[in-house]
Amino acid sequence: MIRDILVDGSWRPSSGTETFQAVNPLTGDTLPAQFPISTWDDCDRALTAAAAAFEVLRETPGDRIAAFFDRYAESLQEHADELVAQAHLESGLPTTPRLRDVELPRTINQLRLAAEAVRDGGWRLPTIDAAANIRSYLAPIGPVCVFGPSNFPFAFGAVAGGDFAAAIAAGNPVIAKAHPLHPETARMLAVLAVEALRDAGLPSATVQLLYHLKPEDGERLVSDHRIAASAFTGSKPSGLRLKRAADDAGKLIFLELSSTNPVVILPGVLAERGPQLATEFCDSALMGGGQFCTNPGIVLLLASEPTEAFIRDVSQQYQARPAGRLMSAGVVAALNASVATLRTAGAALIAEGSAADTAAFTHANTLLRVSASDWLGQPQTFQTEAFGNASLFVVAASVAEASEVLRALEGNLTGCIYSAKDGSEDADYDALAHVLRPRVGRLLNDKMPTGVAVSPAMNHGGPYPATGNPHFTAVGIPASIRRFTALHCFDNVRQHRLPACLRD
Amino acid sequence: MIRDILVDGSWRPSSGTETFQAVNPLTGDTLPAQFPISTWDDCDRALTAAAAAFEVLRETPGDRIAAFFDRYAESLQEHADELVAQAHLESGLPTTPRLRDVELPRTINQLRLAAEAVRDGGWRLPTIDAAANIRSYLAPIGPVCVFGPSNFPFAFGAVAGGDFAAAIAAGNPVIAKAHPLHPETARMLAVLAVEALRDAGLPSATVQLLYHLKPEDGERLVSDHRIAASAFTGSKPSGLRLKRAADDAGKLIFLELSSTNPVVILPGVLAERGPQLATEFCDSALMGGGQFCTNPGIVLLLASEPTEAFIRDVSQQYQARPAGRLMSAGVVAALNASVATLRTAGAALIAEGSAADTAAFTHANTLLRVSASDWLGQPQTFQTEAFGNASLFVVAASVAEASEVLRALEGNLTGCIYSAKDGSEDADYDALAHVLRPRVGRLLNDKMPTGVAVSPAMNHGGPYPATGNPHFTAVGIPASIRRFTALHCFDNVRQHRLPACLRD
Repeated sequence: MIRDILVDGSWRPSSGTETFQAVNPLTGDTLPAQFPISTWDDCDRALTAAAAAFEVLRETPGDRIAAFFDRYAESLQEHADELVAQAHLESGLPTTPRLRDVELPRTINQLRLAAEAVRDGGWRLPTIDAAANIRSYLAPIGPVCVFGPSNFPFAFGAVAGGDFAAAIAAGNPVIAKAHPLHPETARMLAVLAVEALRDAGLPSATVQLLYHLKPEDGERLVSDHRIAASAFTGSKPSGLRLKRAADDAGKLIFLELSSTNPVVILPGVLAERGPQLATEFCDSALMGGGQFCTNPGIVLLLASEPTEAFIRDVSQQYQARPAGRLMSAGVVAALNASVATLRTAGAALIAEGSAADTAAFTHANTLLRVSASDWLGQPQTFQTEAFGNASLFVVAASVAEASEVLRALEGNLTGCIYSAKDGSEDADYDALAHVLRPRVGRLLNDKMPTGVAVSPAMNHGGPYPATGNPHFTAVGIPASIRRFTALHCFDNVRQHRLPACLRD
Repeated sequence: MIRDILVDGSWRPSSGTETFQAVNPLTGDTLPAQFPISTWDDCDRALTAAAAAFEVLRETPGDRIAAFFDRYAESLQEHADELVAQAHLESGLPTTPRLRDVELPRTINQLRLAAEAVRDGGWRLPTIDAAANIRSYLAPIGPVCVFGPSNFPFAFGAVAGGDFAAAIAAGNPVIAKAHPLHPETARMLAVLAVEALRDAGLPSATVQLLYHLKPEDGERLVSDHRIAASAFTGSKPSGLRLKRAADDAGKLIFLELSSTNPVVILPGVLAERGPQLATEFCDSALMGGGQFCTNPGIVLLLASEPTEAFIRDVSQQYQARPAGRLMSAGVVAALNASVATLRTAGAALIAEGSAADTAAFTHANTLLRVSASDWLGQPQTFQTEAFGNASLFVVAASVAEASEVLRALEGNLTGCIYSAKDGSEDADYDALAHVLRPRVGRLLNDKMPTGVAVSPAMNHGGPYPATGNPHFTAVGIPASIRRFTALHCFDNVRQHRLPACLRD
């Protein structure tokens, strides 16, 4: 039996005849449910329904939208067991703590924060110039297409994640494009979303779901005249194809692409607590098979005895810790290809764990090393993202050389510098941070980048090509909501015709 | 003698050998000064200098940047006579009131508001999550290239206008590309800017000036790795070429392109004060030869006796008022081409003034009329912007038909609805405003769109293709500053290393 898509409030068969099935990454077994690969006709219907829903939604009071979020959050809580079981089946991510204790609660929290933000309305940045009788605020923008990533079935997913919450909080309907690795999880979420929409009295096409698209239909979708904006979290090649299509049509697209998340560790802090940092680094780099956007992929070190001791420590842990469990054969293949690229360019394999594991898709923990001078000879190649449990250590001869490495970095989501607690490395810190700061969205001190707190001050964003726009964050309400808005100004508009928040 | 370009703090010869001269639009005489068409080599030097200036500027205290704006504003005031005389010579715009009493004071005011905004710092949207020790604010982004338009030598100009002020207020150096219609005005402004930079102690390459570029070098400039963002105000074809280049390189570009600025005038308000509105409309539409981005190009009317009386009134005024003085032979040619396009599509010429005038580049006031049903047959063609003193009246048979016209509109900077003061047309207003609102950046009531107040609540922006990004305004400090920033987050960064505004 082929699963129905969700279009215009009803579950209905896709017009597509091709199908796909998800795979259990722990066993390699193909899961029974069949999902359609949508045709343009499915997209076209969803677009028309979304445009109609927007006409209603943009006039809908915020408390109804907030009620939807609250109801949906509650429903995720009520159905936590089934949701976590299904997400585990499709993603192989550990039930606990990851899915049950971290990712699902985070997702529920984001939905509740979205409800609060909608009620509060501060994200609208209302501005009243009473003397000139000119007023402005941020208004909803129109239907938003959300492409969810492989690595977070809930928290960044197309039907419940941060982009979904931000788009709807602003008053826009969402066309969710599930990630094909976990279509049933997306379907179960959408069933609950539909109920919550009904309970809150929102247009039923506020949430629609497609499971899979041909690449050319994705490009057509993000550039369609009925779409206002899209959000994509995923691989750089796919993201850039969508960006090109959206840009050419003058449509907004918010991308979260690859990032190597450079971490600089100075010798002084290694002298202070090298073994502790080795464990801290391995925990961050190997957690979840390293399948995080903020995984620390490049570590920049200064030639010194504490650095060599740190590298030995990390090497031992990479060898001793369990193999990385990856989400699909595709992720394994891409990781192998990236490691091969880095090795061909001259990185030495200095530690390799065992790939033996009961799971189907595994990869040995892989630690590579290159000198900064070699890195500087091919800075682009050495910034190849190795998505998964592989890390590249770059050893510089001096702070000046380390600075040159930082200067050659592409835009990243995060960048981190560890320095001696006693302040003895503050001058080196200043020199390096000056170069690193404009190249990353989030600068960390003495802390690994893998935690992305849901904070109003968070920036889960950064300069191109980490994202497509350095103004905006994908995590952190209310700032993330502003992505899906347009600035609306009212000039001499009669009082009773103004939105409530702009009246005298 | 060929004028020098301003690169890296010095006036030096361009490496280009081709030159151009400005023309006095009132006489048609070529002005004596010769200006270079820059080569890529000029751009390359300017980019390197801008990148170096940014390294200093981004760490420069705001009070020094504010001092630059204050000093520059003062200097424009001191040299008002020469500046106005030169701008008049090159643009043909009236010395008074336009240049002396409106545009230059507005420009000076914008610079002073930029100084205030820099001192205030609120535009940075500082956000502190003390519990999580995560903080963020909007930081300068890097060198900005500003392409000034033909129609505002001061207020939107590349060396003193709104984009220039916003980019520097955020802490970014500007590479100004003057408009080739008024290069000497731009040069005089740059001379004063250099003095103000020196007085304020800012890097000398904070302001650089090129007069003219080959189109391919413009595209290379906006996509260069040393540029962070560009701002362009001008024609759609040129803007879209730059957008494509910038988009492909992942660079930000803020565009202000064409706009037909639809004005809806309902019969009830015409019954109340038709003759007064005819004059109000003609003043707005014919002012400055109609060469404003917010010129009301399309007027949507409902078939009725008051509408016919209004059309007769306007026709008489179009015939009786003086010819439009345009800025160049190119503007005249483009306007003629647009009028021909509209007429070929089926618009009737219902009033034409005299083209006789002492000025060299003139155009007869031109009033065109088409039925809404004909307009709806070719909505794209009938939205051809006729930049200058030509207007298209579209007469609809009903509110429903008028609504269809609005629904077919492209994104516009402004949209306006006049309705009866007595409230009798409020239901029609609601129906039409619902459709118009998301299609414009600024919605006006009972007021023509040509005044763009410098207000914090202003939106001089709008949906594509009026601009490239519906979030942002080009006029209105501090909102306009935010265009040239990147969101910088500090996670667990030690207190003394934080920017002052993010410390506890």
